[in-house]
Amino acid sequence: MKKLNVAIVGATGLVGREFIKVLEQQRFPVSSVRLLDAEHAVGSELFFDHRSIPVEDILPEAFQDTDVAMFFASTDVSRRIVPVAVRAGAVVIDNSTAFSGEEDVPLVVPEINPEDISLNKGIICNPNCTALQLSVILNPLHQFNPVKRVIISTYQSVSSSGAAALKELTTQIKQVLDGYRVCPHIYAHQIAFNVLPEIGLFLDNGYTKEEQRIAEETRKVMHADNISISATCVRVPVFYGDSSAVHIEFDSPMNPDKVRNILADAPGVRIIDDCSVSLYPQPWAVSGSSRVFVGRIRRDISKSNGVVLWIVADNIYRGAALNALRILEEGAQRGWIISKKIQEE
Amino acid sequence: MKKLNVAIVGATGLVGREFIKVLEQQRFPVSSVRLLDAEHAVGSELFFDHRSIPVEDILPEAFQDTDVAMFFASTDVSRRIVPVAVRAGAVVIDNSTAFSGEEDVPLVVPEINPEDISLNKGIICNPNCTALQLSVILNPLHQFNPVKRVIISTYQSVSSSGAAALKELTTQIKQVLDGYRVCPHIYAHQIAFNVLPEIGLFLDNGYTKEEQRIAEETRKVMHADNISISATCVRVPVFYGDSSAVHIEFDSPMNPDKVRNILADAPGVRIIDDCSVSLYPQPWAVSGSSRVFVGRIRRDISKSNGVVLWIVADNIYRGAALNALRILEEGAQRGWIISKKIQEE
Repeated sequence: MKKLNVAIVGATGLVGREFIKVLEQQRFPVSSVRLLDAEHAVGSELFFDHRSIPVEDILPEAFQDTDVAMFFASTDVSRRIVPVAVRAGAVVIDNSTAFSGEEDVPLVVPEINPEDISLNKGIICNPNCTALQLSVILNPLHQFNPVKRVIISTYQSVSSSGAAALKELTTQIKQVLDGYRVCPHIYAHQIAFNVLPEIGLFLDNGYTKEEQRIAEETRKVMHADNISISATCVRVPVFYGDSSAVHIEFDSPMNPDKVRNILADAPGVRIIDDCSVSLYPQPWAVSGSSRVFVGRIRRDISKSNGVVLWIVADNIYRGAALNALRILEEGAQRGWIISKKIQEE
Repeated sequence: MKKLNVAIVGATGLVGREFIKVLEQQRFPVSSVRLLDAEHAVGSELFFDHRSIPVEDILPEAFQDTDVAMFFASTDVSRRIVPVAVRAGAVVIDNSTAFSGEEDVPLVVPEINPEDISLNKGIICNPNCTALQLSVILNPLHQFNPVKRVIISTYQSVSSSGAAALKELTTQIKQVLDGYRVCPHIYAHQIAFNVLPEIGLFLDNGYTKEEQRIAEETRKVMHADNISISATCVRVPVFYGDSSAVHIEFDSPMNPDKVRNILADAPGVRIIDDCSVSLYPQPWAVSGSSRVFVGRIRRDISKSNGVVLWIVADNIYRGAALNALRILEEGAQRGWIISKKIQEE
């Protein structure tokens, strides 16, 4: 496998930094790494593989020699710059929502639909963390017994809103404990000691963009247009790790033990489920882990054919950085993402 | 209405203190108030109506002249002492789970089933906060269009676990921010910056006691045995206020506007629902309020006849203390709870 020239856009953000760490840890073969970010970060330096690398401005020239451009910036930045990178000949792996809904843009979880990488026309998208963890759990079950309907309520951490949100939570917590009132910036209301049922913009149907995205992206990754999904997305005062309470209705009766057996062998999944000693996944405990964790597996007492689960994964590491790297690895190994030099040869 | 002699068991706990405040605020006519609590609190004094009242030991003699005994202690204390109070001739209003499941013990939300108070044989129970808020919202809708199934995921505050849990959350928060590890006492795991899908003991079917209780108590209060309810109960790092994401399936199609109209006129309910300016109920904001708040009212995109809601109420004030007082008020006004002296005349 030829080494690749990789550019990382949004390199100084939470996910960008996490990706640099993952790239290093997983020893993915790169011939060069360029770090790009908005003006405020230009001039700073980040370490990669024991070398200090300067952060550069996001200019079109930056993609000249780039084989793969990883985008961990805002949707706005992706919308403006991804086409520039593609025109310069780079394959883009994008973590934003800018293109994830477009029909000819593959949305990939390598454990589920790696072949979709081959269909890319320059852009491959990384799904939303909740859609990712939901599809990693649903897909193996769906192969065995088709899933008809999913109801999901989320408990999402602030880190998905970036480093400023981590700061905001810490600041507000201290203010509340010291008796001060807080002044929200990142969220519409106080997040310290509070929960907010608002993630993303509100749509006309009363759902939020995030809630809609979970439904659409889960179906797209699983190639399962017929699954009905209704989500309520809630921000909770947690730093890292997104959790979900998930009620699944299957086509035919589904034994919780069968669910356990299937998930025990499922790629990327780890079961933590022993009620007798209060064992179940928790965001604090699974933070920094590469698996999707599932527990509290039980029959839904309100529905025949129903099963209830509790799912947790690290939204930054597992949900964003590691999945993006796995798309890159899978694409490079299978020859779907290749060095420009090879293409030109 | 004859004034009553009231004894408050568990007077120094979170709910006990809140009840004393509510009793004072609502100017319920008492002729005497006795404060009872476990040994560690005996000798301390609490203020009621500008008088300092000593906290006494929970001894059988304490109920001699008591017309009504309010129980805000643990389930264990209720199990042991409620029969003693009943034998002494007091009517008991119990906030624990000790007797709430028994067939001949009424479980009352005065907005819904006040007449059940008249059926008491000495004990009337106060429901669990989540069952209370769920039934206050479901009941008026159910009258219009029968509810078939409810899926509820909760975001429950630590105050339901008592004053020690408030302290544990604050202590752990400080420890985490200062870089220390935490040592959980009240909960099985860290609650600071974490969420725990465990409230109450685990049952054989994989649900917890709290999840089962929500289903059973909601049906009992509403006299609606046919509603299927499946709950996932989750503790979140919030001081006061329990929230729930609720998916309701009705017998026939239900327009969200109709839901809004019905709830606008429903007793004890307040709608906060304007997505255009990020308005929805939040536990921090509704803390200390006497209503059950509802927002994010929308059609369930995964089910015809389905509606999704977000419900929040103060678990200590609204869910426990105020409901207990309303049972007492309603019972006293309607002559179902009366002074022993009148009974003897």
